[in-house]
Amino acid sequence: MDLHPTVETTAEDIASMETRGAATIGAAAAAALRVQAGESDAVTPEAFRAELRVAGRRLHETRPTAVSLPNALRYVLRRMDGDEVATLRASVVKAATEFEQRLDRAQSQLGAIGANRLQDGDVVMTHCHSTDALACVEAALDQGKHLEAIVKETRPRLQGHITARALREMGVPVTLIVDNAARRYLDDADHVLVGADAIAADGSVVNKIGTSGLAVNARERGVPIVVAAQTIKLHPATMTGHTVEIEMRDEREVVSDEDRADIGDVAVENPAFDVTPPRHIDAIVTESGQFPPESIVTLMRELFGDGVAEPWVEPTNE
Amino acid sequence: MDLHPTVETTAEDIASMETRGAATIGAAAAAALRVQAGESDAVTPEAFRAELRVAGRRLHETRPTAVSLPNALRYVLRRMDGDEVATLRASVVKAATEFEQRLDRAQSQLGAIGANRLQDGDVVMTHCHSTDALACVEAALDQGKHLEAIVKETRPRLQGHITARALREMGVPVTLIVDNAARRYLDDADHVLVGADAIAADGSVVNKIGTSGLAVNARERGVPIVVAAQTIKLHPATMTGHTVEIEMRDEREVVSDEDRADIGDVAVENPAFDVTPPRHIDAIVTESGQFPPESIVTLMRELFGDGVAEPWVEPTNE
Amino acid sequence: MDLHPTVETTAEDIASMETRGAATIGAAAAAALRVQAGESDAVTPEAFRAELRVAGRRLHETRPTAVSLPNALRYVLRRMDGDEVATLRASVVKAATEFEQRLDRAQSQLGAIGANRLQDGDVVMTHCHSTDALACVEAALDQGKHLEAIVKETRPRLQGHITARALREMGVPVTLIVDNAARRYLDDADHVLVGADAIAADGSVVNKIGTSGLAVNARERGVPIVVAAQTIKLHPATMTGHTVEIEMRDEREVVSDEDRADIGDVAVENPAFDVTPPRHIDAIVTESGQFPPESIVTLMRELFGDGVAEPWVEPTNE
Amino acid sequence: MDLHPTVETTAEDIASMETRGAATIGAAAAAALRVQAGESDAVTPEAFRAELRVAGRRLHETRPTAVSLPNALRYVLRRMDGDEVATLRASVVKAATEFEQRLDRAQSQLGAIGANRLQDGDVVMTHCHSTDALACVEAALDQGKHLEAIVKETRPRLQGHITARALREMGVPVTLIVDNAARRYLDDADHVLVGADAIAADGSVVNKIGTSGLAVNARERGVPIVVAAQTIKLHPATMTGHTVEIEMRDEREVVSDEDRADIGDVAVENPAFDVTPPRHIDAIVTESGQFPPESIVTLMRELFGDGVAEPWVEPTNE
Amino acid sequence: MDLHPTVETTAEDIASMETRGAATIGAAAAAALRVQAGESDAVTPEAFRAELRVAGRRLHETRPTAVSLPNALRYVLRRMDGDEVATLRASVVKAATEFEQRLDRAQSQLGAIGANRLQDGDVVMTHCHSTDALACVEAALDQGKHLEAIVKETRPRLQGHITARALREMGVPVTLIVDNAARRYLDDADHVLVGADAIAADGSVVNKIGTSGLAVNARERGVPIVVAAQTIKLHPATMTGHTVEIEMRDEREVVSDEDRADIGDVAVENPAFDVTPPRHIDAIVTESGQFPPESIVTLMRELFGDGVAEPWVEPTNE
Amino acid sequence: MDLHPTVETTAEDIASMETRGAATIGAAAAAALRVQAGESDAVTPEAFRAELRVAGRRLHETRPTAVSLPNALRYVLRRMDGDEVATLRASVVKAATEFEQRLDRAQSQLGAIGANRLQDGDVVMTHCHSTDALACVEAALDQGKHLEAIVKETRPRLQGHITARALREMGVPVTLIVDNAARRYLDDADHVLVGADAIAADGSVVNKIGTSGLAVNARERGVPIVVAAQTIKLHPATMTGHTVEIEMRDEREVVSDEDRADIGDVAVENPAFDVTPPRHIDAIVTESGQFPPESIVTLMRELFGDGVAEPWVEPTNE
Repeated sequence: MDLHPTVETTAEDIASMETRGAATIGAAAAAALRVQAGESDAVTPEAFRAELRVAGRRLHETRPTAVSLPNALRYVLRRMDGDEVATLRASVVKAATEFEQRLDRAQSQLGAIGANRLQDGDVVMTHCHSTDALACVEAALDQGKHLEAIVKETRPRLQGHITARALREMGVPVTLIVDNAARRYLDDADHVLVGADAIAADGSVVNKIGTSGLAVNARERGVPIVVAAQTIKLHPATMTGHTVEIEMRDEREVVSDEDRADIGDVAVENPAFDVTPPRHIDAIVTESGQFPPESIVTLMRELFGDGVAEPWVEPTNE
Repeated sequence: MDLHPTVETTAEDIASMETRGAATIGAAAAAALRVQAGESDAVTPEAFRAELRVAGRRLHETRPTAVSLPNALRYVLRRMDGDEVATLRASVVKAATEFEQRLDRAQSQLGAIGANRLQDGDVVMTHCHSTDALACVEAALDQGKHLEAIVKETRPRLQGHITARALREMGVPVTLIVDNAARRYLDDADHVLVGADAIAADGSVVNKIGTSGLAVNARERGVPIVVAAQTIKLHPATMTGHTVEIEMRDEREVVSDEDRADIGDVAVENPAFDVTPPRHIDAIVTESGQFPPESIVTLMRELFGDGVAEPWVEPTNE
Repeated sequence: MDLHPTVETTAEDIASMETRGAATIGAAAAAALRVQAGESDAVTPEAFRAELRVAGRRLHETRPTAVSLPNALRYVLRRMDGDEVATLRASVVKAATEFEQRLDRAQSQLGAIGANRLQDGDVVMTHCHSTDALACVEAALDQGKHLEAIVKETRPRLQGHITARALREMGVPVTLIVDNAARRYLDDADHVLVGADAIAADGSVVNKIGTSGLAVNARERGVPIVVAAQTIKLHPATMTGHTVEIEMRDEREVVSDEDRADIGDVAVENPAFDVTPPRHIDAIVTESGQFPPESIVTLMRELFGDGVAEPWVEPTNE
Repeated sequence: MDLHPTVETTAEDIASMETRGAATIGAAAAAALRVQAGESDAVTPEAFRAELRVAGRRLHETRPTAVSLPNALRYVLRRMDGDEVATLRASVVKAATEFEQRLDRAQSQLGAIGANRLQDGDVVMTHCHSTDALACVEAALDQGKHLEAIVKETRPRLQGHITARALREMGVPVTLIVDNAARRYLDDADHVLVGADAIAADGSVVNKIGTSGLAVNARERGVPIVVAAQTIKLHPATMTGHTVEIEMRDEREVVSDEDRADIGDVAVENPAFDVTPPRHIDAIVTESGQFPPESIVTLMRELFGDGVAEPWVEPTNE
Repeated sequence: MDLHPTVETTAEDIASMETRGAATIGAAAAAALRVQAGESDAVTPEAFRAELRVAGRRLHETRPTAVSLPNALRYVLRRMDGDEVATLRASVVKAATEFEQRLDRAQSQLGAIGANRLQDGDVVMTHCHSTDALACVEAALDQGKHLEAIVKETRPRLQGHITARALREMGVPVTLIVDNAARRYLDDADHVLVGADAIAADGSVVNKIGTSGLAVNARERGVPIVVAAQTIKLHPATMTGHTVEIEMRDEREVVSDEDRADIGDVAVENPAFDVTPPRHIDAIVTESGQFPPESIVTLMRELFGDGVAEPWVEPTNE
Repeated sequence: MDLHPTVETTAEDIASMETRGAATIGAAAAAALRVQAGESDAVTPEAFRAELRVAGRRLHETRPTAVSLPNALRYVLRRMDGDEVATLRASVVKAATEFEQRLDRAQSQLGAIGANRLQDGDVVMTHCHSTDALACVEAALDQGKHLEAIVKETRPRLQGHITARALREMGVPVTLIVDNAARRYLDDADHVLVGADAIAADGSVVNKIGTSGLAVNARERGVPIVVAAQTIKLHPATMTGHTVEIEMRDEREVVSDEDRADIGDVAVENPAFDVTPPRHIDAIVTESGQFPPESIVTLMRELFGDGVAEPWVEPTNE
């Protein structure tokens, strides 16, 4: 049973981080499975299935913690179906193509859906930089709505500056504030609009550090909080109770070497993300529609299965 | 009716900001009233009272929005009492001296009281830099307790760095975090301990921007929030409904000129303080004891009167 | 490609409001599609599909904001399936019939389900007039339970009077109160039971003005709030982020011309509905069972699709 | 021991409701005590004290449930002090005069204090009709602030119409709404501003039916709720645990005879007031300053004693 | 139409409580249906279906309030599918076998999922005794994690003692407390982990008395509460609004005869269970993955249908 | 300077616990000060004052953690006032007598006040056994009100049995429940009524373990929670930040030796009390009236001073 060279190349490119970015990795994995299916010379359905599972495992082992990679594999392999090699092959090719098309259109579809929530004249507060969130604003502008934005600078890495510039370039009047000023300016905001790094089965949202504190204040101030996230951010492993590991980043993002010399011997903790529980979120906007966070697990199961079975693993005879 | 030159000098020094800092201004004003009373050559009680009111007005007009200045005047002039010049004089001298002594001892007394709330092994989260808050920690260390601290850096001016260094010098292990990480680290904190710029009659606390958002999260996480503030931070004008004006500071504290050039034409808002409602605060620790925020008005009235009468103003014949 | 005259007549009757009422409109639209399918002389599957889409568009354009009309079209056209004209025709006829049967039985099925939540001796508080809500009470009475009702009069149009009379006629002891008295009488209520004008994908409920304020108080008082609504009230367009437009009604419902003359030149705002977020609602009772509001989107997708595709629109070749 | 005829006349006028209104009753009672003290021919301090207590009892028995009447008696009799008839007489005359002067100035002082809470451009939501609340608005207008108002009509008696007209006459733009629309328009309001019928020692506020439901929603929406009430509305009997009895009014305020005939045999409940707990109120504005509701008991004790002793009752020899 | 003797025997054993325990009853019912299907000599599909329905009814009537019994019947009979006797038979045999296999593996699968939520070093608070909850702990220990437990004794029957011993035998350090001490020790807990007796369609959890009070406190203290429950605990009848009846147990569990004699004539109420609303629960862990409580209805419908149709009842011709 | 033998005897009796119980200790300490003052042969005011302070210190050192002892000393010594020995003596005798009289009447006065909160027909839920709480019920019965009670058994020591019997003997119908059933029965209760072991300056209440968890649930269910406590339970040391130490009791109250043998090696924690924050309490009923918990510090200061000065300590010359 031979893997097609494309699978190997794709795996190496993902492993070496030549292929990067959630969408790019997902698309590459789907494409590799399509090639494997298309070029397979397996003669029995069993052989074909086994071959595809091997391809899946090879791809999966490259970066098992990237959310989009297992999602691509789950999407395609769960849709492999048929009693003969030809139908099996067709099903894989179809699913891989479908997955790529979804990816292609996801951000603009999501943007159109998020835009519908925004009213002419609304003020949006943002945290960090999310192209999914910005797609909602852009689509609303395209619908002819006038919007304004309050942009949190988002320490430590000040991604709010990127967001501010992007919004300015769209013609949106921007007010930039430090993160500490968020509660005060929530009184002027109609929506909090953020992206997500991962979305868990219990409805909690993993996003840039500071999101959860903002969400608690938004709830207290009566401002709805909307998360814009493509479905490749859904994290099926959380259906089986796994928690999303939070990256701890270099302390020099927080304190420069000079500052450090000045302050003396203190510990610096710099987590990249935090977790917002579903009760502090009003809606998750995806390219498949908007959902209350408590229902996102339904979409997760529809797209990627129940998380118990890993379709690249040899089924046992239990 | 002549003002003593000391009153004039003091007034000029306060106006020119040569005399600065809440405690220093308060002490100077009280001392000036003491000199005026001691050196007065008024021969009737009416003349003496009028003279002291004029001195009070002269001092008050220099910086009417500094909280400690009217507090010093209220404290002393409300205690002016007697039917003869001699007893009036004595009452003013006594009240002015008392006020100065309170000021002298306030921080250490407050520290001792705040320290009693802290248990051996506790972890304290701080925001901004407050010598009143640090006095609590220092007194607790003097009681032999071991404490640790989580220090928010406090954008935009990073006063958390000063706090971190001060705590390190006291021997307290410090973890420095960005403000965005506060909610996550609240799970490790036993207390949030902050200072105050002013405390209002409705029990709300005016403090460095970011305090209110922190307090909302601390309540949601079940961590008690304690405000350490000397009584000169009490703001009697709020008893008559006045609100505390919030200073808007230079936008260059938020965004450098280069960043600005890069981001483009955005507004930057940089309020220095925010307002935390009493329901998000557990206790206010003063040198006169600790109070629930809803009761601080009682102490305010005891020390400074009911806020309706301004004792430096000529009484009318209504 | 010709539309059957029945489709045209139905469209005209809906447009002219001769056909009115959510259920009646929905049934008429489904019936028109059934006629079109039954009488179609299309010879290719493509032609048949196109014909049905044209019929759908014709019907849809009559009153695109009536919730039940697109729901009928979505229900039937999404179930059009087959490779030949005969099977396509059969599928449409079957779906249209099914939709009509659901409509026929919806209120009594919903009533039976809602009745099961009510215990013998319970007191129910109502707002406005909802035959779906009353169906629950009636079914509970049929089960032999004794119930009492507290009826809010429901300004401005006092639909509570209609509810009060209807309940009396069922033999239910009624206490009528002004809307302002609701919080006080919540202490005597075991359930708040209301209907809905529309239910959104994020779980929020659009209902008669005053519902949201009642729900907030019911939550604060610990009284569960139940929404009784047939599935034709589900609003699939909200899955794509659309918000439900709130009708503003004539100010004379609020203030008579005499009163107006007396009061002088004031603005009067008279919104017909408000929006209750899902966190203030305990359950939505439909003829398909009861759901937490956060899950109703699942039922919406099952019945009407994901809201992205509009089945009466020509598919593009993207 | 003879009561002065003025006391008897005053008592009769209060009993017959010729003397009406909280302030008028209070002033009349204080004046009667002043006359009794001024004209008394008692020769021993004991006799004088007994005489004044008898006068107090005579007045008190006329309408013991009117809050302002016992407050006037408490205020004056608690300040009766001295070892000789002359000093006793002087103390009563002084206290009675003081009480009357407080009453005279209370509303304008209270208005000035409440006005300080309002900012230029603010929108105020009102419930029912309160001259104390309107005094705050009027004082703010006098300070040159622009205000707008959202006026709830306040069923059943529609006192909102009176408020709307009064505000219009002051030049305030008014939007009139039904009570059911309050939650929706809270998003446009900066303050909820209401009066009070009585304020209890536990900080709860008795006011027009509908206040408590509004307050719960205002808290949920993040809008501060301010109660404007002169100190004669404080209810000292609540310090000893008494609850304020809620008047039940004629059902014809709720439903006309025709409506009634139409609806059939239903009960109608029409309570005049409800009770808002202190946790849903931000501040109580009185002529003696503003207080958190949890602290109002301090002011109550200062003005009217601790509520345990009734100064018109013969002290026992316990 | 004859029932196979196995069905009758199984029914009698369930009725006589010889067959007891949720899992055992469920497995027995599924097995009986498999035997009936396997041995049926029905010659038409209609006869076969009718026969199976009769078997279902016979089994159902034995103990209709046991949750697992109707769940087994629903699971199997809903999957009966086919146009011929052979395919019908195969479908029943397959579904019954599947149901039994699910049951067999449910607890270990659920344990593995729950274990993934637990981190090395976590402290778990338990209430009552639940083998599903303990399976999560055991699986986490197997993963090499160190855990500690705070065990509530769980009056009246002190099932906490059983839990404490079981945990000790697994090597988990245990702190035993009275139920009254729970709030204090929640500050030391990372999770509250309980089982369930039944789970309702509105997301509420029926579990041992005391669970709801614990959950409210856990939410207030910021501790997540997780319910571990196999899917046979899901209660499909609640989809149609039925409430779960709460067993009232013997008062002697609460008060001994001697105590009773001592106390005198008091009523004793001893409910076995209470109901925790979904907003106080973070996740329900089943063998099919974890779900927010608001989404569990989706799983319920997937496994057991919509609750409206009872598959053992003769369909009517409506 | 000689202490009177009575002081020494009193001190020894308190130290040896021959004199026990909060009220008895307080009365004994006040009486000892009265004797010392009455019999003192000091000839200068300074000597008299010093003598009384020494007596105070001698008494205080016996059991410094009993709340009532320092309260008695504070009450009496703070009221020592005068310029001559005679007036000083009189002031101490008067204050000591007053304190004793307050103690004598406190419970019945408190009961009368608490009773006024209860309405005819109300249901009261109790926790533990408090004679102050029962005094409220008894006084309400004396007022002719009918009351019923739900009594929590209060593990581990089951003081609820004592409460149940006492209530039965008063003729109150009692329902006894386990502590775990409290939330369920809160729906039937109009008040939660408990006593207190100590009340802190920040308004929190130290009472029998389980009180805080009950209070959180009572707030969530909308049931007001009232604390009945004489003023000797006020804890002035908490004004200076001291926290009340929580006694840990013998584990055999929780688990018998046999049970222990059965369970194996587990830790048992048995705290006697817990701390309820003021936001979960509606009112504290004392013999001096009822107070919101946030205001109790005012009464504490009035009766016992500000807690900073300890009147038995030699003043320094700072």
